Amino acid sequence: LRKVAVLGVGQCKWGMLADRTVHDMIAEVGNAALRDAGVPRNLIEAVYLGNVTGGELCNQYTMGSVAAHALGIPAVPAHRYEAACCTGAIGFREAYLAVANGVYDFVLVIGVEKLNVGDMDRTVEVISRGFDSWEGRIGLLAPSQYALYATAHMHAYGTTREQLAMVAEKNYYHGSLNPDAHMQKRYTVEDVLAAPMISDPLGRHDCSLVTDGAAAVVIGPLEKAKEYNARPIEVLASAVGAETSTTASRESYVSFGSTRRAVEAAYKQAKLGPEDISFVETHDCFTITEIINIEDLGFVPKGEGGAAVQDGYTRLGGKIPVNVSGGLKAKGHALGATGVGQIYEAVKQLRGEAGERQVPNAEVALTHMLGGAPSISTVHIFARGY
Amino acid sequence: LRKVAVLGVGQCKWGMLADRTVHDMIAEVGNAALRDAGVPRNLIEAVYLGNVTGGELCNQYTMGSVAAHALGIPAVPAHRYEAACCTGAIGFREAYLAVANGVYDFVLVIGVEKLNVGDMDRTVEVISRGFDSWEGRIGLLAPSQYALYATAHMHAYGTTREQLAMVAEKNYYHGSLNPDAHMQKRYTVEDVLAAPMISDPLGRHDCSLVTDGAAAVVIGPLEKAKEYNARPIEVLASAVGAETSTTASRESYVSFGSTRRAVEAAYKQAKLGPEDISFVETHDCFTITEIINIEDLGFVPKGEGGAAVQDGYTRLGGKIPVNVSGGLKAKGHALGATGVGQIYEAVKQLRGEAGERQVPNAEVALTHMLGGAPSISTVHIFARGY
Repeated sequence: LRKVAVLGVGQCKWGMLADRTVHDMIAEVGNAALRDAGVPRNLIEAVYLGNVTGGELCNQYTMGSVAAHALGIPAVPAHRYEAACCTGAIGFREAYLAVANGVYDFVLVIGVEKLNVGDMDRTVEVISRGFDSWEGRIGLLAPSQYALYATAHMHAYGTTREQLAMVAEKNYYHGSLNPDAHMQKRYTVEDVLAAPMISDPLGRHDCSLVTDGAAAVVIGPLEKAKEYNARPIEVLASAVGAETSTTASRESYVSFGSTRRAVEAAYKQAKLGPEDISFVETHDCFTITEIINIEDLGFVPKGEGGAAVQDGYTRLGGKIPVNVSGGLKAKGHALGATGVGQIYEAVKQLRGEAGERQVPNAEVALTHMLGGAPSISTVHIFARGY
Repeated sequence: LRKVAVLGVGQCKWGMLADRTVHDMIAEVGNAALRDAGVPRNLIEAVYLGNVTGGELCNQYTMGSVAAHALGIPAVPAHRYEAACCTGAIGFREAYLAVANGVYDFVLVIGVEKLNVGDMDRTVEVISRGFDSWEGRIGLLAPSQYALYATAHMHAYGTTREQLAMVAEKNYYHGSLNPDAHMQKRYTVEDVLAAPMISDPLGRHDCSLVTDGAAAVVIGPLEKAKEYNARPIEVLASAVGAETSTTASRESYVSFGSTRRAVEAAYKQAKLGPEDISFVETHDCFTITEIINIEDLGFVPKGEGGAAVQDGYTRLGGKIPVNVSGGLKAKGHALGATGVGQIYEAVKQLRGEAGERQVPNAEVALTHMLGGAPSISTVHIFARGY
């Protein structure tokens, strides 16, 4: 396998973007990534695009081709990926495999999602179709599923609602330092605990945001990358893991097998372990998810995720900062864009360009997405290639 | 690159399948392909699934994971592809690349689509979102776009409505020999010409069918394939080409640049030319499309596609039989399944298992899909690997 690097990244402001279309978000982030990479666009050989709901909410399938056209490279093969919330990260992984294996040199990966289309009930119903449709009929949608996991974790390990709330408080704080984040406001633990209950024990502030957003990255072989960009970020590992797609048939309700499989493969590929990671972007679709994830990723022993956040271990300035971008909680969850947005954050941090939210001495980044029940996970590890 | 083979194929009866769900179609074709391949399912390392409209029409995103679950291999990574009508073929190509490059050994590729959900107006509107959404607003949907191409072809080369009708008559005839085809009935050229006009010069019988269907194939490295199956079908070429995603910005209205780029790359990879191909499955979304395609694929000079069908050149028993499965016109067009269904047909023909529609002396098969305006094309070439 050839070494692969991220040469350039682009991202728009995330939020409820009433005046934007997927077309113009794609153009903004794609052009920004190309400029940042320094790679002439006529060298781009493929476009890998992640998007979940554009066919339904934006009247546009075939969004890969639409992106290539919008970016002035219409004769470049382009197609779309979907694996629920893992969508953008899966697109990145498939592009990584293509470059690592020499199928293409330079590839543009785009994640885009526009969820706020003036009818939040409809949007929430559409998003829920990322879960098993049979279970959806009996009410096992996102909040109710993750409420079960939260309850199980509380029962098994004594995790508290306060600890869940501390995840939200931390990520709101991080998001307030990120100008691209959907939510700029900070909330206290008391604010989080006082919010209306959505699915017990998860209140409104335990849930991630419904966000419009886009991000793009240009990747290429590390050796060739150096011809165009003096600061390539190397992909040390790219891994995927899977588990059953229904809640009823899960291996565990306090741990995600897809994550464990993906991270084991990623650490093996990178020849690194959790002790080598400087900071993490992980899938905090709900506060409990971040707690389970940091355990499954090996940063703390199983059951100690709640205590870790309580001790400030995962806060900016702590031992292993988690979701310094604000995460899905505060930067926002733009489904197909979120996994690519995590990579944007990893690159900005590793380059030392993350402004107020900069992680000191950021050497190695780990990004982690979950999709579905969760039925699929991706883990990527990055470090400076210069 | 390792040599790659198709080990097994599965397909259900295509049609308006009111009593079926995507879940049970996936289970039928996936299990059939696994049985046919002789590969134990615990050796499958990934599921690549093509589907376009399932999120909207069947309330199910994340269909890759759903498929892995339905087939009893839930811990196998699975995700979904979409590139309009090219969807299933793009999934096959990406799976081919993964196996050829040694990422995986055995991979299951599934194409599935359920379009008939009791509201044909809604279905047709949803399908139209495969084209550029801005052009859709001014009426450039599938029939109106391809009507422009038909008119341009008639103007440039003297192609006639009768010749278009002969494509339909031929493919209906072929479909009547295929027990899995949506349409079993034959229609005469007169029937086709007498049908109601949809978008002049394309009448109702010039348009492909709105079909529910599914197909699956198991692929693996040719050398390992021989351990499990005595009759592997080798993938001699896999190629993709692209062009602009809008009708207004096309390079030509009588030729598709995406096809030309894909087929040039495919012939080069296979070290073959059109004279070496025994039969073709090509994207006859409209009758004019088949005529343009057989020209772009090099089987007849540009402008002579109409005469070729008139002369019986492309009929079963002719020089280069085209769409002996019945094509999109009679086997049916199940969007994300169609490209995988073409490969099912190629494999059955090359093995000599195609029954009444068997092409005599079938040695080399070419399959060709178009997606979007068309903005993307795939070409695959197959031959016996035994």
